[in-house]
Amino acid sequence: PSSLNLAVVAGDGIGTEVVEQGLLVLEQALHGTGTTVRTTDFDLGARRWHATGETLTDEDLAAIRVHDAILLGAIGDPGVPSGVLERGLLLKLRFALDHYVNLRPGKLFPGVTSPLAAPGDVDFVVVREGTEGPYVGNGGAIRVGTPHEVANEVSVNTAFGVERVVRDAFARAAARPRRKLTLVHKHNVLVHAGHLWRRTVEAVNAEFPDVTVDYLHVDAATIFLVTNPSRFDVIVTDNLFGDILTDLAAAITGGIGLAASANINPDRTAPSMFEPVHGSAPDIAGQGKADPTATVLSVAMLLDHVGLPDAARAVETAVAADLAERGSAERVRSTAEVGKDLAARVAG
Amino acid sequence: PSSLNLAVVAGDGIGTEVVEQGLLVLEQALHGTGTTVRTTDFDLGARRWHATGETLTDEDLAAIRVHDAILLGAIGDPGVPSGVLERGLLLKLRFALDHYVNLRPGKLFPGVTSPLAAPGDVDFVVVREGTEGPYVGNGGAIRVGTPHEVANEVSVNTAFGVERVVRDAFARAAARPRRKLTLVHKHNVLVHAGHLWRRTVEAVNAEFPDVTVDYLHVDAATIFLVTNPSRFDVIVTDNLFGDILTDLAAAITGGIGLAASANINPDRTAPSMFEPVHGSAPDIAGQGKADPTATVLSVAMLLDHVGLPDAARAVETAVAADLAERGSAERVRSTAEVGKDLAARVAG
Ligand SMILES: CC(C)[C@H](C(=O)O)[C@@H](O)C(=O)O
Ligand SMILES: CC(C)[C@H](C(=O)O)[C@@H](O)C(=O)O
Repeated sequence: PSSLNLAVVAGDGIGTEVVEQGLLVLEQALHGTGTTVRTTDFDLGARRWHATGETLTDEDLAAIRVHDAILLGAIGDPGVPSGVLERGLLLKLRFALDHYVNLRPGKLFPGVTSPLAAPGDVDFVVVREGTEGPYVGNGGAIRVGTPHEVANEVSVNTAFGVERVVRDAFARAAARPRRKLTLVHKHNVLVHAGHLWRRTVEAVNAEFPDVTVDYLHVDAATIFLVTNPSRFDVIVTDNLFGDILTDLAAAITGGIGLAASANINPDRTAPSMFEPVHGSAPDIAGQGKADPTATVLSVAMLLDHVGLPDAARAVETAVAADLAERGSAERVRSTAEVGKDLAARVAG
Repeated sequence: PSSLNLAVVAGDGIGTEVVEQGLLVLEQALHGTGTTVRTTDFDLGARRWHATGETLTDEDLAAIRVHDAILLGAIGDPGVPSGVLERGLLLKLRFALDHYVNLRPGKLFPGVTSPLAAPGDVDFVVVREGTEGPYVGNGGAIRVGTPHEVANEVSVNTAFGVERVVRDAFARAAARPRRKLTLVHKHNVLVHAGHLWRRTVEAVNAEFPDVTVDYLHVDAATIFLVTNPSRFDVIVTDNLFGDILTDLAAAITGGIGLAASANINPDRTAPSMFEPVHGSAPDIAGQGKADPTATVLSVAMLLDHVGLPDAARAVETAVAADLAERGSAERVRSTAEVGKDLAARVAG
């Protein structure tokens, strides 16, 4: 592409800090590719909500839609009631833009310390469904605040929704050397949803006979993530289980400061969104302490998505080299210093 | 009590092997207490289902009800369709006998190897709600097997159900030295259920002003379980999150071979049930390879529940001593050998 129209939702707290560095690295990575980036900033998140009471208006959404991709930092501050920005902004974007593939690599880079004593060679990717499951917002409560309150949450799963994400996961597994797909669910308890997932994986496997499939209950999957994470190649799972497993995956591969993610609309009917897994971290915001690496790795995923794999590899290589040398560093760098160093490495 | 009427559901696979050792240690622990145990075996599980198609009949349930407690091994084999025994037997027992407190300690005994490089001093307990949440079996599907299938699962949460388990968790926290309670949920996404849990914890906190409360989203909780598990004292959480967190807790404290659990009816309107967290492990069944320690520790929880805390402590002490010496053992002992050694230690 000759130009990349990027919607930027830096958000709150450390979101603005890490996005600034992500953009710096992005510009550097595009250098010489013939693609130039044009960014539009969207003032969304806690600041906007405090000022106006708005989370994401129809106008915001329409304006975001015309972009090629979205870079998101982090959303939220302790002054906003829980759920307001999550449901009204972050999940609204994922649902409205049909980000049904929430892609989250779990990779332990050389030089990075894992809390595991013997992590082994960890390099998997979680394909988390992004538009269904318990995240649909299909819950409600009666008699709220009384002793007779009942609060329900409904997990909605459709053949349409499960099949498309499972097919995407198979395609990813087929393109990887180990060609292994692990379905994670809890079909012995959530029998209806679980059996839909299981049947779908079995059916789609016929289209990808080279891919080996196995299954783990979500509870067992957390065990393997700490006892034998190298057993995983591609994991496909529902929205909630994916949320849980990817934070755990981040923890064992060096922490959420390094964990990238992509909310992908594979049909390209709307822009995909790239964001670090971490939140706005109000406790360290404004201090230049945040690690921008997760955002920079999300930028690499963005570059892949827009058809610039060489630029994506350059960013990843820069991150890998930076991480490999961190152990021997004399001091902890600031957010801006890490960004500058990564950009310099990308420049070569 | 002068006699303890115990319903024994040894179940399938390694279930029968570990229960045999659990009973051996139980008899030894009761020696000299003035309490004698009378056991009734219940033929429930995969074997029975294959033979008769039955999971748990009304007669079975009525017969179990008249006991003081239940010792359960493990249920299931690969020949039974997923969900049949879980919903029809295990969860049916938990729900019918109102086991609303599912208690699962996460304790790293000295001498036990954790997969974590620096686990620290891990000693917490998870109070998992046992009769509500996504486990209620309130799901369904339409157009099954067609491209238009919709499969729903409903998480049901009531003020009644949440309050009683939260109060139990507070009481446990108040009785522990650190007096700390962590609520784990996902109230930024599951807003209705999550806010019920949150409001309930806030309200019950007023009755336990000495207990410090904090909150973690379930995804963040998995991070802390691998980066800083010693931060936890008592965790209270819903049925599904508790399922996930307790397997992870087991993993970081030496594996499910050591993880005990108690399904408690605190109102004592029905017998409580004690079971290892692990399953029937068909891959190692019948080989004497299973570790009976989780079952023996569940027996200690049983002894506490029936009012024999000294006997419970004796069992725990025996386990702790056994675990402390495992590192220097020359060979791996069989299931029966571990049971015999533990019984000998209890005998003193
Ligand atoms: C902030 C929250 C709604 C979000 C989620 O649960 O998906 C976050 O945890 C994530 O993983 O991106
Ligand atoms: C077997 C299964 C139904 C059960 C559960 O999910 O509760 C098990 O995983 C457990 O934790 O006891």
